[in-house]
Amino acid sequence: MRVLGIDPGLRSLGWGVIDVTGVRLSHVANGVCTSDAKAELAERLLSLHSQLTRVLKQYAPDTAAVEQTFVNKDGAGTLKLGQARGIAMLVPAQAGLPVGEYSPNKVKKTVVGVGHADKGQVAHMVSMLLPGCVLAGPDAADALAIAICHAHHAQSANHLEKAVKRAERQGAA
Amino acid sequence: MRVLGIDPGLRSLGWGVIDVTGVRLSHVANGVCTSDAKAELAERLLSLHSQLTRVLKQYAPDTAAVEQTFVNKDGAGTLKLGQARGIAMLVPAQAGLPVGEYSPNKVKKTVVGVGHADKGQVAHMVSMLLPGCVLAGPDAADALAIAICHAHHAQSANHLEKAVKRAERQGAA
Repeated sequence: MRVLGIDPGLRSLGWGVIDVTGVRLSHVANGVCTSDAKAELAERLLSLHSQLTRVLKQYAPDTAAVEQTFVNKDGAGTLKLGQARGIAMLVPAQAGLPVGEYSPNKVKKTVVGVGHADKGQVAHMVSMLLPGCVLAGPDAADALAIAICHAHHAQSANHLEKAVKRAERQGAA
Repeated sequence: MRVLGIDPGLRSLGWGVIDVTGVRLSHVANGVCTSDAKAELAERLLSLHSQLTRVLKQYAPDTAAVEQTFVNKDGAGTLKLGQARGIAMLVPAQAGLPVGEYSPNKVKKTVVGVGHADKGQVAHMVSMLLPGCVLAGPDAADALAIAICHAHHAQSANHLEKAVKRAERQGAA
């Protein structure tokens, strides 16, 4: 299973792709889509959409997850973030992928073990879990962490589903 | 010139199309794109994107404007609105259109004459300015008001540009 993680942002939108085979994770690619702060908003969103669409075409993930970013201090910042997040959710949906959502705390708890980890700790654990990967920056590291979190929870859900089905079969037998 | 106005929203996204010939305005169409509140966020954004793309294909506007919605009381609401607004800005940009942005106050001031007009007053003035139009609802009325505002300010900008050019020509002569 190939997983795309996205850390949304208008100026800098991080993305990371990993492969998951059983419990084994491996790094595929990571990067950052950027938009020119001096350009018109519509142009910036269009640019992020094109860049992220190229990433999906190039790496053909099976599933995607986007950080359920918590609200900023100021409303204007939240609105900006929301606009970028709209694009981050749309692009994988356009490719027909299911799109998971995880809070930053859930991502940190899954990857680092604690919900209040800082960016440096997240990047460190991502490097440990995906040996050999070269991080394109903190937003790309966060995106890989989101992909790892999604892989972990998708697998748990899958295990649970299998366990439920097994129990049902045994109940029916 | 054909103008598309958009009043962004996740549950209900209003749109309105008008034709502008000199100072004459005429109604072309208006409506509302909706998304199922029970569906996943990515699915809802994808649905709004498809519906709005169809509107653009059907009515082929020359320019578009989106309400620069001010921040809600709560951050979660602003984030939701931002996501819908991202789609509302993206779709006309994908069609190669310039996308204007106007604050609700500017729209009301242009259409009604005062910045604190309520939805009923806006709908009333829209019906007066576009005789014969049947409004699909308050969000569609707001979208038509945004289109009227854009037409008005684009024309003013155009007049100004012409006046500046004329003055430059006279200065050069």
